[in-house]
Amino acid sequence: MSEIRFALAQIDTCVGDLDGNAAKVLEYSRKAAAEHADVVVFPEMTLTGYPIEDLAFRATFRKAAWDRADRLAEQLADEGMGDLYIVVGTVGTERSASLPQNRLVVLHKGVVWAGYDKHFLPNYGVFDEFRIFTPGTHSLVFEVHDRRIGVAICEDIWQDGGPVAELAGENIDVLLTINGSPYEEGKGHLRVDIAQRRSHEVGAPLIYLNQVGGQDDLVFDGASFVIDRDGTLLERSPQFVEDLSFWTLPESDDHDGLVSTIADVLDPDEEVYTACVLGLKDYMVKNGFHGVVLGLSGGIDSALVAAMAADACGGENVWGVSMPSMYSSDGSKDDAADLARNLGAHYDVQPIEPLFNAYQSQLALDGVAAENLQARIRGVIVMAYSNEKGLLALATGNKSELACGYSTIYGDAVGGYAPIKDLLKTRVWQLARWRNEAASRGVGIGGLRLVGNEQADPGIQKDEIIPVNSIIKPPSAELRPGQKDSDSLPEYELLDKVLAAYIEHAHGRADLLEDGFDEQTVDTVMRLVDRAEWKRRQYPLGPKVTSLAFGRDRRLPITSRFRE
Amino acid sequence: MSEIRFALAQIDTCVGDLDGNAAKVLEYSRKAAAEHADVVVFPEMTLTGYPIEDLAFRATFRKAAWDRADRLAEQLADEGMGDLYIVVGTVGTERSASLPQNRLVVLHKGVVWAGYDKHFLPNYGVFDEFRIFTPGTHSLVFEVHDRRIGVAICEDIWQDGGPVAELAGENIDVLLTINGSPYEEGKGHLRVDIAQRRSHEVGAPLIYLNQVGGQDDLVFDGASFVIDRDGTLLERSPQFVEDLSFWTLPESDDHDGLVSTIADVLDPDEEVYTACVLGLKDYMVKNGFHGVVLGLSGGIDSALVAAMAADACGGENVWGVSMPSMYSSDGSKDDAADLARNLGAHYDVQPIEPLFNAYQSQLALDGVAAENLQARIRGVIVMAYSNEKGLLALATGNKSELACGYSTIYGDAVGGYAPIKDLLKTRVWQLARWRNEAASRGVGIGGLRLVGNEQADPGIQKDEIIPVNSIIKPPSAELRPGQKDSDSLPEYELLDKVLAAYIEHAHGRADLLEDGFDEQTVDTVMRLVDRAEWKRRQYPLGPKVTSLAFGRDRRLPITSRFRE
Repeated sequence: MSEIRFALAQIDTCVGDLDGNAAKVLEYSRKAAAEHADVVVFPEMTLTGYPIEDLAFRATFRKAAWDRADRLAEQLADEGMGDLYIVVGTVGTERSASLPQNRLVVLHKGVVWAGYDKHFLPNYGVFDEFRIFTPGTHSLVFEVHDRRIGVAICEDIWQDGGPVAELAGENIDVLLTINGSPYEEGKGHLRVDIAQRRSHEVGAPLIYLNQVGGQDDLVFDGASFVIDRDGTLLERSPQFVEDLSFWTLPESDDHDGLVSTIADVLDPDEEVYTACVLGLKDYMVKNGFHGVVLGLSGGIDSALVAAMAADACGGENVWGVSMPSMYSSDGSKDDAADLARNLGAHYDVQPIEPLFNAYQSQLALDGVAAENLQARIRGVIVMAYSNEKGLLALATGNKSELACGYSTIYGDAVGGYAPIKDLLKTRVWQLARWRNEAASRGVGIGGLRLVGNEQADPGIQKDEIIPVNSIIKPPSAELRPGQKDSDSLPEYELLDKVLAAYIEHAHGRADLLEDGFDEQTVDTVMRLVDRAEWKRRQYPLGPKVTSLAFGRDRRLPITSRFRE
Repeated sequence: MSEIRFALAQIDTCVGDLDGNAAKVLEYSRKAAAEHADVVVFPEMTLTGYPIEDLAFRATFRKAAWDRADRLAEQLADEGMGDLYIVVGTVGTERSASLPQNRLVVLHKGVVWAGYDKHFLPNYGVFDEFRIFTPGTHSLVFEVHDRRIGVAICEDIWQDGGPVAELAGENIDVLLTINGSPYEEGKGHLRVDIAQRRSHEVGAPLIYLNQVGGQDDLVFDGASFVIDRDGTLLERSPQFVEDLSFWTLPESDDHDGLVSTIADVLDPDEEVYTACVLGLKDYMVKNGFHGVVLGLSGGIDSALVAAMAADACGGENVWGVSMPSMYSSDGSKDDAADLARNLGAHYDVQPIEPLFNAYQSQLALDGVAAENLQARIRGVIVMAYSNEKGLLALATGNKSELACGYSTIYGDAVGGYAPIKDLLKTRVWQLARWRNEAASRGVGIGGLRLVGNEQADPGIQKDEIIPVNSIIKPPSAELRPGQKDSDSLPEYELLDKVLAAYIEHAHGRADLLEDGFDEQTVDTVMRLVDRAEWKRRQYPLGPKVTSLAFGRDRRLPITSRFRE
């Protein structure tokens, strides 16, 4: 039997960017051809980007994607790559069905060749595919030379039955799966577990090819791999970077092929940090932003966000604005200035007291209204920088405070992207310590340069890029004299455990008490979270009176380059 | 055969308010019993409210709902209503299924009696039920005395096949459907059409019972009805108000019963206006707001919103804030003051020039950044009123400007509720004219009092409650000297037609050209709309790194009274 050389093209696509995505397929196919690949494998919905949400409903988009696949097949053949088998994902045309398909096609000898439609359409968690796609009903095996290749798309291997079960009787030589599987902490080993099960089921090695990159609020981590029939890992691509790796299906059936490159797995803190940085970096690139602006309070949240931003786009593209009030401590102001210097970021000081006094002479606010006013003045200033310089405004809220509503709408919540909104406060501290320690070790992260690593300035201590004081001081919003977060919230060590149970694991009140949390804490946290749930929705609700209102029934990708 | 008297209890429920909803069932059942009803019919998911979105996943919620149904059956029996058949909707328990059911139950003789689970789970438009419910698989017929009653829930009658098709062979005497069907302009006759088809299919009269009231951004219009086998309308309940009507299934099979009350249908402008007012009113009531605040510019949008607010909660609970800048015309200021006086609203003037100058002395902004600054200062002031007085801030943007991004994030877009966000600008003018004309005729609207109707003040002309000048002057944001909307946008008469085609009917570029719009207009509008699509999402995106992030995979109702 023939030996088949697979190229695993783990690329970063952009939703709607049909030309850009096709160009990347060409580029990686050329590299793969130069390395004598027979089959080049790309991620789920390569040409359209993923997830396309309601773009699926637009007939002109589907037609443009289909035309682009045809043209790409021709381009590949014109460039002498017609003999390669190029496996890409795209959106199907719906001729008979009322909704299109999530489709895998093979480009070969100038034409769009075999087609397979995703069967299991996930509609849980972040996935909402059942609403926009028609499920496929048949399995597909295509032959390359004399070898039989079965295919599946993402969710198809996560559920029992369906086309993958059918492949068990098809005597296939390899099971090829293309994926758009978002990063989620701790999910990596689940993918390997399920791949081992399916590989065993079909009696063939399994190729798991995943996309990489940020798309709106999802981050795809790549980490593609190959598993042999006995469960051994034969190849693993790196996490969070584009990559082209190779794996060869051997001539003989006796063994599943030699072990190829096995990339290291990042440690948990590095993994989460890198996911946050890549999410921000790709959001900027894909939406045309060159720099960011954020308020620097001297606290830990804005410090970590600033470090992430510097790692995403370089310190010279970060504008940090210190906006001290009458309640800001000198320590806070110094910490903010030190941080900006350490990161090589721009640093401006905009005191808010004169503005606060101007408002107060008209409004004479008290209590929480007066506290919110300070936060909103800062929001206006951040947005002024954003508008004037074309910068992406970053919100610096963490998940603990957002969950509890300890945040001011149109104030500190202002921004187009919130790099740490899914990190609990205790995790924020942990990542800040990790970031300092990593800089002092001089390591890079998942293909990214850590800003501060190469600084020769003797005034910068590499293990204190994020000022230690920002990490160790008691958290405070500094909106009134002597204010501490702990005046309003349980201590974060406790709060974060309750939030993890209530939000992440959907434990109800009875479950939380059984978890061992005391009644008062449980009731406080549940009240705060339930109350914050609707405050968090800043976009005003409004009555829907016509067939298509904004905000509810239209779900378009935020990042999309599709233009008709 | 026995005569059966049905009571149609078209009520307004609140999501999560198990006790409140149950109390309302009791109250309407008592009234129905006093009028000798045999069967009392309530809307889809009566006890839980509708739609419950991710509350469906919370085990404690499902259990609480189930316990409440049991207790309600006992309460009904204890009060001597055990012989009645009370038809209510609720959430099913999921014992074997992984997701719960959307269930109809009959409360009778102190127990929860028959159960039917919704079969067709809509997941298009505003509906997302397939994600949260397990579909039912069986039809249900229950007997009252010697008559056979078939049942269905909402979507079950909109699709061919399923349990309703099964009922065709079941020799039923009546088909009873309970619904949570949101208002949508022009949808009323579609409901009657489909009811006529199903009534014919099963060979029995059909009762269509719909809920009424606002729930977040949905408004349910009620308008329940009964259709006989030959398609004749036998009963119609009023739109937009709670109602208890009766219809009797006669002894003899020869005819389907006498015609009962047929409520008038509102005219199109009155219908949309009433939907907007009811949506706002219920959002306030269900979230505990007693008053609203909004900026009054003297323009038509804020004028119409103020009128709606006054009709929703009374002029004395409306705070109108005029926030003139150096670019505001005297006419605008006068129009705002006149409007507030006509509506009996509070009226404050907060000039923004001193605040603008204070910011500019620090920031020295130009162009659009300086224009946005003015809008954001106004946003801060509106939120200060909201925080200080506990008022709901209303955003006054219309659908045309929101669609085109002609609006300032954190500025005029500030607010918790946007009453006219689904109305195109030309419709805003039309409703303003209708509102003036209706007030001068002295009519009420769908059960609501029109503020200004009863004013005896000779200074108020009833047909000019909304100042005519606000309606006829050319629209302007007044953020720079001589600015007009038409500097940046096509004329609204044209723009609204293109928006209707592009947004409402999802026409692509080629379709729009075929519709007869000129190329330049099409390209301008498409560019504006596509660009605004992501600007409209104010809540910052952020990377999802844990299993459950905010904003994307959690979809809880905003308005919910469920407390564990």
